[in-house]
Amino acid sequence: MRADLLSRVLSLLPERSDRPELTGFYGMLRDYPERGGKGIRSELLLASARAHGAQPDAAPAPGTPWDAALWLATGLEMFQNWVLIHDDIEDDSEERRGRPALHRLHGVPLAINAGDALHAYMWAAVHRSGVPGGMQAFLDMIHRTAEGQHLDLCWVEGRRWDLREEDYLQMVRLKTAYYTVVVPLQLGALAAGAQPHAGFHAAGLALGAAFQIRDDVLNLNGDPVKYGKEIGGDLLEGKRTLIVLRWLAHAPREQREVFLAQMHLDRPAKDPAVIAQIHGWLLESGSVAHAQATADALAREGLTLLEEALTGVPDQAAAQALLGVIRELATRDA
Amino acid sequence: MRADLLSRVLSLLPERSDRPELTGFYGMLRDYPERGGKGIRSELLLASARAHGAQPDAAPAPGTPWDAALWLATGLEMFQNWVLIHDDIEDDSEERRGRPALHRLHGVPLAINAGDALHAYMWAAVHRSGVPGGMQAFLDMIHRTAEGQHLDLCWVEGRRWDLREEDYLQMVRLKTAYYTVVVPLQLGALAAGAQPHAGFHAAGLALGAAFQIRDDVLNLNGDPVKYGKEIGGDLLEGKRTLIVLRWLAHAPREQREVFLAQMHLDRPAKDPAVIAQIHGWLLESGSVAHAQATADALAREGLTLLEEALTGVPDQAAAQALLGVIRELATRDA
Repeated sequence: MRADLLSRVLSLLPERSDRPELTGFYGMLRDYPERGGKGIRSELLLASARAHGAQPDAAPAPGTPWDAALWLATGLEMFQNWVLIHDDIEDDSEERRGRPALHRLHGVPLAINAGDALHAYMWAAVHRSGVPGGMQAFLDMIHRTAEGQHLDLCWVEGRRWDLREEDYLQMVRLKTAYYTVVVPLQLGALAAGAQPHAGFHAAGLALGAAFQIRDDVLNLNGDPVKYGKEIGGDLLEGKRTLIVLRWLAHAPREQREVFLAQMHLDRPAKDPAVIAQIHGWLLESGSVAHAQATADALAREGLTLLEEALTGVPDQAAAQALLGVIRELATRDA
Repeated sequence: MRADLLSRVLSLLPERSDRPELTGFYGMLRDYPERGGKGIRSELLLASARAHGAQPDAAPAPGTPWDAALWLATGLEMFQNWVLIHDDIEDDSEERRGRPALHRLHGVPLAINAGDALHAYMWAAVHRSGVPGGMQAFLDMIHRTAEGQHLDLCWVEGRRWDLREEDYLQMVRLKTAYYTVVVPLQLGALAAGAQPHAGFHAAGLALGAAFQIRDDVLNLNGDPVKYGKEIGGDLLEGKRTLIVLRWLAHAPREQREVFLAQMHLDRPAKDPAVIAQIHGWLLESGSVAHAQATADALAREGLTLLEEALTGVPDQAAAQALLGVIRELATRDA
């Protein structure tokens, strides 16, 4: 994330206490933000704020639209970080940004509690922005993200694979698209004192779904060096993706049975050789290519809707820049 | 909790979705609030609002002080409930209000996520109150509660018993006293449009610590029928209490070794006969009586400070009623 946002995040968090345990606690709150992160969502928010007329300023005065946008972007980064702390527990992930997940360093109880505290500090950032409607946008965002996460976790818990492509798309819209695209676009408008265009909703859902499907595709056919995460990791984690669901609907029965047998095992019990074989089937079946085509279609649809929604914004050059950022995200290879 | 508060809580939560999984999710959000709870904190808040001049009204108009007080009280009850969902995971509790804890019904991942969602819905209640300063009071409350929880969990995690009475008091002030007494008193004033008296802070910390110590005492010498929880349950859970810490500082070495050996075991591995023996030692040692005396002294100190802080409030009859509620809590036997 941008250095100015990280310094705003850290400025809201306590640093030292007379009690060493609490200094340790504050260190837990700072840990994920300090590990970095791409800052995609805050970048979109700031690009949207510029398009809506907020003037970037390296040292904005409090109360100016750019200062408000920076506080909302700070809140969005804090949202991302507390959610990741809890997600990593919920998925029992091992790593986050190249280091052990927080609960692997400190245990589940302390990590749940740190996530809760960071959640509350996020609201301080939203409050600091002073933007009317900002709080409601964050509430809507958290509610939908939690609903999407519930769907995803429910399916894992119930070992459910009898899902249609539309189930996946519904989950991804709630879990990812809303907070990744819809809300950043809306918050940028609000920071600049503008009413968010109603079209941001449909545009953001299509684009957000496109980004996630692109990510699922890269996880299977990406360049290991550029992509940064383990290729095929989603299969080991048993993630529901458009690719897998479509393949399951058409795969030969024996392949489906091999797949479902692996998916009934916990991650450490899965057989890497069998997973590699399934990986091959997925690539051969054309499901990966089909998912990529779906992502491309959604990205085109979303970009068209977004262009329309941005026709009236005051800074057209900045609107073009925003569209450029989004186009890049939709076609990224890492 | 009062029926009007429960109905406000439920009015903020979604109820049905076309997706059965999400209807299940909404049921998880409603579960703990619907199980009841004493509603002590909201009662204090409403009593404080009356003392500060808010007029109770069975059907208050939006924007009136009583309506604002009810929304803040609703937020306080929602705070209590989401924190309990996460606390029950952190302590791996089996039951909550006579039924299995939420994570025992749905698993840890879904319960963490439901607690997060309920946390966000809490902010909707705070927002609805429209009370200036209400949000900041909630932020301060969550930060301190999380710090207190961190201390307590840290000590459990590190199997630490080398703690002084002052360590315990510091933990309890952060973890319990602040949200149980200080913040309800402050929020009542804010709802009525008054500036909270600075004395609420010290008064509330003393009274909140007194309530918690009283609770710890009842856990060892309470009437099983009235008390409702398992007598001696705190020993089985290995809770740090003033009673145990004082006893440890003076106990014969063999007794201390027996105690520490039991505390190094997880709950199911603890020997009930040995725990009963330790229970007897604690009662005989005078540490229970000492803790009760400390609670009484703190309650007296807190009541004196609170009486002073309430001398200027507009409704003196309501102020006396508030003091009565608090006096009752400090001397309760259940």
